[in-house]
Amino acid sequence: RIDSTRLWDSLDQMAQIGPGVAGGCNRQTLTDADSEGRHLFASWCKAAGMTMGVDTMGNMFATRAGTDPEALPVYMGSHLDTQPTGGRYDGVLGVLGALEVVRTMNDLGIRTRRPIVVTNWTNEEGARFAPAMLASGVFAGIHSQDYAYDRRDPEGKRFGDELARIGWVGDEVVGARKMHAMLELHIEQGPILEAEGRQIGVVTHGQGLWWLEITLTGKDAHTGSTPMNMRVNAGLGMARITERVHQIAMSHQPNAVGAVGQVFVHPNSRNVIPGKVVFTVDIRSPEQAKLDAMKAEVTRAAHAVAAELGLGCAIEDVGHFDPVTFDPDLVKVVRGAAERLGYAHMDIVSGAGHDACWINRVAPTVMIMCPCAGGLSHNEAEEISPEWAAAGTDVLLHAALEVAEV
Amino acid sequence: RIDSTRLWDSLDQMAQIGPGVAGGCNRQTLTDADSEGRHLFASWCKAAGMTMGVDTMGNMFATRAGTDPEALPVYMGSHLDTQPTGGRYDGVLGVLGALEVVRTMNDLGIRTRRPIVVTNWTNEEGARFAPAMLASGVFAGIHSQDYAYDRRDPEGKRFGDELARIGWVGDEVVGARKMHAMLELHIEQGPILEAEGRQIGVVTHGQGLWWLEITLTGKDAHTGSTPMNMRVNAGLGMARITERVHQIAMSHQPNAVGAVGQVFVHPNSRNVIPGKVVFTVDIRSPEQAKLDAMKAEVTRAAHAVAAELGLGCAIEDVGHFDPVTFDPDLVKVVRGAAERLGYAHMDIVSGAGHDACWINRVAPTVMIMCPCAGGLSHNEAEEISPEWAAAGTDVLLHAALEVAEV
Ligand SMILES: NC(=O)NCCC(=O)O
Ligand SMILES: NC(=O)NCCC(=O)O
Repeated sequence: RIDSTRLWDSLDQMAQIGPGVAGGCNRQTLTDADSEGRHLFASWCKAAGMTMGVDTMGNMFATRAGTDPEALPVYMGSHLDTQPTGGRYDGVLGVLGALEVVRTMNDLGIRTRRPIVVTNWTNEEGARFAPAMLASGVFAGIHSQDYAYDRRDPEGKRFGDELARIGWVGDEVVGARKMHAMLELHIEQGPILEAEGRQIGVVTHGQGLWWLEITLTGKDAHTGSTPMNMRVNAGLGMARITERVHQIAMSHQPNAVGAVGQVFVHPNSRNVIPGKVVFTVDIRSPEQAKLDAMKAEVTRAAHAVAAELGLGCAIEDVGHFDPVTFDPDLVKVVRGAAERLGYAHMDIVSGAGHDACWINRVAPTVMIMCPCAGGLSHNEAEEISPEWAAAGTDVLLHAALEVAEV
Repeated sequence: RIDSTRLWDSLDQMAQIGPGVAGGCNRQTLTDADSEGRHLFASWCKAAGMTMGVDTMGNMFATRAGTDPEALPVYMGSHLDTQPTGGRYDGVLGVLGALEVVRTMNDLGIRTRRPIVVTNWTNEEGARFAPAMLASGVFAGIHSQDYAYDRRDPEGKRFGDELARIGWVGDEVVGARKMHAMLELHIEQGPILEAEGRQIGVVTHGQGLWWLEITLTGKDAHTGSTPMNMRVNAGLGMARITERVHQIAMSHQPNAVGAVGQVFVHPNSRNVIPGKVVFTVDIRSPEQAKLDAMKAEVTRAAHAVAAELGLGCAIEDVGHFDPVTFDPDLVKVVRGAAERLGYAHMDIVSGAGHDACWINRVAPTVMIMCPCAGGLSHNEAEEISPEWAAAGTDVLLHAALEVAEV
């Protein structure tokens, strides 16, 4: 079993970097705080006897040598970046849990045949630079590096420039590494495990997702002196489409979600009818047919609302992945480990996107989940118990021992 | 008649200060550009032989002496501040038109019994510091100066601090001046005069207004892993209330308008269900009963939407005035002047709020309107013709000659 106190202490130390305003974290990707967090993580890896490699997307790979220098390594990890008002555990548990697995192996003098690599993937959240899971997506060949470097944050700063600014452009070619397997431990970010009283979620599938960015163009005009019938109100269009996104998700229950998370109103003045609104739509389902249907329905609804209000309407696809099926053999390994350790477990579907969803395209991959209080995540109040963290990390340890071959 | 070329040239020079990005202006109140515009205006007043007084709200009063030192002055003016993406004429025409009236009187060697005072009221727009018509409101005793000084812009800067920073805190006590009458020339900001082919609007009434600021509080949560039935989505609440504001205004047609102009979504991240939204509602009617009814209906609708979604809902009144009836005798003077000058005219109701609406509480007041192209205002593309500007200013001149007693 892993050292629960040491793990909890490392989680707490990492949370001091880029602290939030309400007990959580604001350690957004490619900020100074992100860089500081990376240095802390690197120092811990060094102390645990690992060697660090960094690729040109800033992905970090800390290697613990195996006994067979020819064997493909087993990867474990997640991400250290957070939402602007994010929790302390989303992603971080997967990285520091993997580190704790190595520390425990060191303590117990355990050697594995395969090398073990603890990974921190750059910009998983996608909050600052859309899409999410950007760097694991480049690693898996989904995006080109040029595409990734050209992503811009809301202030217009380029991903490539910011990565260079914080000093984390490495020298490895992205995706050059070959993997025997990849294991990602993550908090559930949903309410099911807690409600069902299970310590472990064995993740068999992941939801698919579409991220759309809609730009409605109307006409700035005076809110007082412009008659109702002369208005071309982009804000009203945004409101109607927001409602339609909700209705469309509701009409595909169960196994479908949809929401508008980000809204920019122009010129955003109280006495000006909005002449332009840019906003984002997030729709997801674990079922391909529902995901496709929702995408078509949202697109149709947006154009229909725009037409009824006389608005211009442009829809950009800013992120997408299809529903994911994780590696059945690795799923069995995780289920078996939970079983042997005596943890209550169940199979679940990941509601969120994860680096594992992309890596699954290039190597056998699986995820392990632990509960989070009230299912709350992407909120500074995100909370887990030390016991949940330890259970998930224990399962990660035992799965790693099996996959990396003791 | 006034000198149309000189007027147009002054309007153009003022528009160079705080230029917009699309041909209009961004000379928001209490910015460096506002200060620069004030200095230019002050230099022109001095050159026209006037003496300048400034009160502790930054209101500017340029006086042309009358022949009777005991007689109460006639005030003319409007505002030089603009929306963030505003037009070149909204407010500015009323100030520089009044200046042109004085210049014309100087050219023609005309003396009036009453002094004439050309005024620039501070923060008419209310875009940076709500409510609108803030300084004329303090002058008219509607707001205390302390209240005004404590208004904050979206960045949290205080009105009082910003007024001091740009160096325009004068020494006069606000509202100490007594007026014989106040005349405000303004562009219509609506489509009626142009559609009816009239050069002059004789403004008999002004619409009343309510500005509300609604704060909806839900729960930040993950857009992917939070089931639909566990969401407390403040963004969806904002969308529903935005639609209800529109419907309520439509249900009171004619003579009612309503819109949401400003929206702040928190945390405004694509994969976070909005936990908080702050947005503004602007509802207006020239009929007291409709205005009251709309206020009550919007309030009820907001609370009902919040209740159905489980959201917290706080509604703050940030601005209000009742429908205005301008001075009937002055209305006759304006109508008579338009008639004598041979301009096509009609009585109209002001759709926007104006400094004249507050000053009307403390002195006989009237407004003169000229058309604007397509009724467009609060838009950088706001446009008027030199002929429209000249016609309005001619009527202002002739009304002033009568009221100030040649
Ligand atoms: N796990 C997580 O929150 N990832 C960000 C991408 C997503 O929104 O699913
Ligand atoms: N004239 C004008 O646009 N005033 C600003 C206050 C309002 O929104 O009516």
